[in-house]
Amino acid sequence: MVTRLSTYFLRTLREDPSGAEVTSHRLLVRAGYIRRQAPGVFAWLPIGLRVKAKIETIVREEMAAAGAFEVHFPALLPREPYEATGRWEEYGDALFRLQDRKGADYLLAPTHEEVFTLLVKDLYSSYKDLPLSIFQIQDKYRDEARPRAGLLRGREFTMKDAYSFDYTDAGLDASYQSQRDAYERIFSRLGLEYVIVHADAGAMGGSRSEEFLHPTPIGEDTFVRSAGGYAANVEAFTTVVPDARPIEGLPAAVVHDTPDTPTIQTLVDLANAEHPREDGREWTAADTLKNVVLALTDLEGTRELVVVGLPGDREVEMKRVEVAFAPAEVEPATDEDFAKHPGLVKGYIGPWSADGAVLGEESSTGIRFVLDPRIVDGTEWITGANEKGRHVFGLVAGRDFTADGVVEAAAVRAGDPAPDGSGPVELARGMELGHVFQLGRKYAESLGLKVLDENGKLVTVTMGSYGIGITRILATIAELNNDDKGLVWPTQVAPFDVHLVATGREAAVFETADWISDQLETAGVDVLYDDRPKVSPGVKFGDAELIGVPIIVIAGRGVADGIVEVWDRRTGEREPVAIAEVVDAVARLRAS
Amino acid sequence: MVTRLSTYFLRTLREDPSGAEVTSHRLLVRAGYIRRQAPGVFAWLPIGLRVKAKIETIVREEMAAAGAFEVHFPALLPREPYEATGRWEEYGDALFRLQDRKGADYLLAPTHEEVFTLLVKDLYSSYKDLPLSIFQIQDKYRDEARPRAGLLRGREFTMKDAYSFDYTDAGLDASYQSQRDAYERIFSRLGLEYVIVHADAGAMGGSRSEEFLHPTPIGEDTFVRSAGGYAANVEAFTTVVPDARPIEGLPAAVVHDTPDTPTIQTLVDLANAEHPREDGREWTAADTLKNVVLALTDLEGTRELVVVGLPGDREVEMKRVEVAFAPAEVEPATDEDFAKHPGLVKGYIGPWSADGAVLGEESSTGIRFVLDPRIVDGTEWITGANEKGRHVFGLVAGRDFTADGVVEAAAVRAGDPAPDGSGPVELARGMELGHVFQLGRKYAESLGLKVLDENGKLVTVTMGSYGIGITRILATIAELNNDDKGLVWPTQVAPFDVHLVATGREAAVFETADWISDQLETAGVDVLYDDRPKVSPGVKFGDAELIGVPIIVIAGRGVADGIVEVWDRRTGEREPVAIAEVVDAVARLRAS
Repeated sequence: MVTRLSTYFLRTLREDPSGAEVTSHRLLVRAGYIRRQAPGVFAWLPIGLRVKAKIETIVREEMAAAGAFEVHFPALLPREPYEATGRWEEYGDALFRLQDRKGADYLLAPTHEEVFTLLVKDLYSSYKDLPLSIFQIQDKYRDEARPRAGLLRGREFTMKDAYSFDYTDAGLDASYQSQRDAYERIFSRLGLEYVIVHADAGAMGGSRSEEFLHPTPIGEDTFVRSAGGYAANVEAFTTVVPDARPIEGLPAAVVHDTPDTPTIQTLVDLANAEHPREDGREWTAADTLKNVVLALTDLEGTRELVVVGLPGDREVEMKRVEVAFAPAEVEPATDEDFAKHPGLVKGYIGPWSADGAVLGEESSTGIRFVLDPRIVDGTEWITGANEKGRHVFGLVAGRDFTADGVVEAAAVRAGDPAPDGSGPVELARGMELGHVFQLGRKYAESLGLKVLDENGKLVTVTMGSYGIGITRILATIAELNNDDKGLVWPTQVAPFDVHLVATGREAAVFETADWISDQLETAGVDVLYDDRPKVSPGVKFGDAELIGVPIIVIAGRGVADGIVEVWDRRTGEREPVAIAEVVDAVARLRAS
Repeated sequence: MVTRLSTYFLRTLREDPSGAEVTSHRLLVRAGYIRRQAPGVFAWLPIGLRVKAKIETIVREEMAAAGAFEVHFPALLPREPYEATGRWEEYGDALFRLQDRKGADYLLAPTHEEVFTLLVKDLYSSYKDLPLSIFQIQDKYRDEARPRAGLLRGREFTMKDAYSFDYTDAGLDASYQSQRDAYERIFSRLGLEYVIVHADAGAMGGSRSEEFLHPTPIGEDTFVRSAGGYAANVEAFTTVVPDARPIEGLPAAVVHDTPDTPTIQTLVDLANAEHPREDGREWTAADTLKNVVLALTDLEGTRELVVVGLPGDREVEMKRVEVAFAPAEVEPATDEDFAKHPGLVKGYIGPWSADGAVLGEESSTGIRFVLDPRIVDGTEWITGANEKGRHVFGLVAGRDFTADGVVEAAAVRAGDPAPDGSGPVELARGMELGHVFQLGRKYAESLGLKVLDENGKLVTVTMGSYGIGITRILATIAELNNDDKGLVWPTQVAPFDVHLVATGREAAVFETADWISDQLETAGVDVLYDDRPKVSPGVKFGDAELIGVPIIVIAGRGVADGIVEVWDRRTGEREPVAIAEVVDAVARLRAS
């Protein structure tokens, strides 16, 4: 097909849109693919819809190949199913809620686990009906606190969400693998390099959860990987726990005056200067126990303090803390919080004081105390003595203090051992492409989805959830394929195969370009034809570069000599080609 | 392609869904096309999506042929543009409104005039950019007071909405005609007989508005048409106004006692008995002036009474009244309303009393008084005298009373003259298929959409709006194509071309059916293949009839003799066909 730019609904913009923080957003707006309607809410223009449709086609084909059937749910859904699973509350402010004219509660669905579950419950009753995988490509809503980065994190977005239903764990594993394989094919077809990383299974989660990340320094997600093949996002990384050590024979803890030690480093310096170790080893930050006070707010709005103890050379990583305490919201404790708990001496907090336990078992404060997994029994620590200007040395875990639990709160560092023994990890950045997720039986249990098994016994169905952000993928491809002139689409998702430009004012040039467009169309090539009569070559080339069709054909003065130029937008190479050879030249480039 | 029913996500139901008032709803749910999620909100199952996609493809093709470009807007839109055009208020309870986490107002768009206007304003600035027609196929929301009739009137529905932009009236006419022509092609391709009727242009409306109705006794809309080619929906029908008559020389009005005349008929009987006309003609209901008291509530919530005067042989038609007084809401006055206005003597209301004007100019009540267009100056009426048990005879319009306006409030009757002189009209029923609508410059004015014309002068753009309810069309087709066994899809929108049924338990039958499905697939026929191994023939036939694929091929016992049965679901004819001939037989039926 030939689309003539003289009448096409496409306008490029010279200026970057205000507030566009990322390249994809900037270029997709400037090149006329999308327009912002509200924060995080976009309209799709004709050329943008073309790219979106190509991605959707690839996803649909691979879903069909994986045996998944397409359905389509509304965005507007009643509260009740989400109430039953707890997500009506858990989503917090991120859920768009509304009421109808009768005052009944509705939401704009951020994902559809509940109603897929209910649909299957409604129609299926036997193990013979299973396995089943169903999916939709549908517009979803999430009221992001800071919608930013254009389509990469919008408040409305198109997703492919698939759900699998099985009655055995082995069945779920097979369904999961089938979707996972489909994802590998999808991202390969889209030309998107990916790493599959272990992901956090979340509050409603089941057993297995993996993210497909595209590794790139501009990615917004951090993940870790080892040379031996381990990969996980930072939320899902699990610490290798050292063995406990014998407590017997360890010297008693001693309290020392430690004036003017506002930081871990000043404390370490003082310790080395005034209280050196007998064996001559230097004290380091890793010998100190840092106790960070956090405030959790649960779904009912109740605020509770919790103290996290971790080695002084590690920082608390909020992403990991949030996962650990989900669905509660977490923030650092405020002065007000401290004022309410005089038992916590700010700057000198520790689990122990000369008067007894401050945190942990039989503590004087009653505040929950959780420890980094590295703080195993028998380890010795320098930590606050709960008196201003004093620290305790040689406080032994399991002897002098105990905790109410273990929490993965510390940031992962390059060099930390991978939990699977595959060696030290490095940190990398990536962009999320998709997520596969074993939900297990939680949704089916909440909503009563059971089937009769081979023995006529009712068994709860086990489910998987598999998501790809279609609009996010599109933005990711744009983010990864551009230069300072504009977009450079990969062939398989380009809005057109060829951008044909006729320059100048000579009728012969336009006639030749018309002929070329016919030839290309006949050859099954989708052509965007810049036939605008009174636009300068410079503007036309600029538009072509901005729009980013990978092959540009220029009919200009050379036409008099039977020559046009074929320009590979991806490499920048431009070569003269005889007019009669254009179709072949294009075919060669498309195949390259 | 072959879709095997043994694994397909499709379950038919034996029972009608509760609350399904119309056939299409009942059958589409039972046959597994849709499932209800909330009142007026449905999910689409795989087989339903197939039919929907076919309709969308036809619509897309004809929109492209009409030169319209596809875009896609979000359903979630900010309040501001709808505030600017007044529709934020005007939509009343029918608009789903919500707030985001920052308290900003949003809506779920019922139509998208505002944002299309703003998009064009954003990108276009010159007459050279025009004409432009753009469309989308998108899910819309309307909080209907009584969502009913399944997809025919849902709260979420898929619409094709197109908008045209021109800078001259002639341009608008051409764009309008182009969409109108496309609609004719669409409905012809869908096999839907249609009548194009004049429609009300609505409160925000422009000059021209037409609806495409499918004439059918089960239609929910009433329209009128003349043998001479006039057609209008009842809201848009305009009364042929009689000429005014000379007032001079008419006798003075006289008040008579009229006890026990609670109805028009008892009043007419009394008049004929006690006060016969001098010329001997009988009084009829058409000689009486009936004054109906209505209560209007405007957008600010202010309640106002209005009295509508019309000939006693006509009823007020609320649909016409609602259009006349839009955007105010209208209902009959209550006893409470009457209690507040003692000047209106219930049962004996008229514009005049012995003490002077009760309604109309210098009236004692101050209540707005509007008249049916037939009440022209010089007409004489029997009407209430605003005293209990008394009526006034010979009250002359334009002499004894005047009105504050004219209103098209009376119901249209068969035999009323068409306004274009094409003869008397008849009343008919129809189902709305689509709507084409000249908006004119109202939206462009409200939102400031102007372009520079040939003379460098800023001119306001003139617009058209063109809608087809995709899901409504689907339901309409289902409503019109079914029998007591189930759905009977027309070929062009059927979910599959052929429903192949293998019956019995013999392996040979299933092998033959496998072979036939391969042959059909190779011939490009889309097959739903009922390969379920342990389902009885009766259940399979019942499902096939319910699902409604127009051609059913049955492989059963005849296979041993090289014969299958080809069943035309539309005519009910079943003929034996040699197995090798099935592809040809199917091709013949598909072409028929």
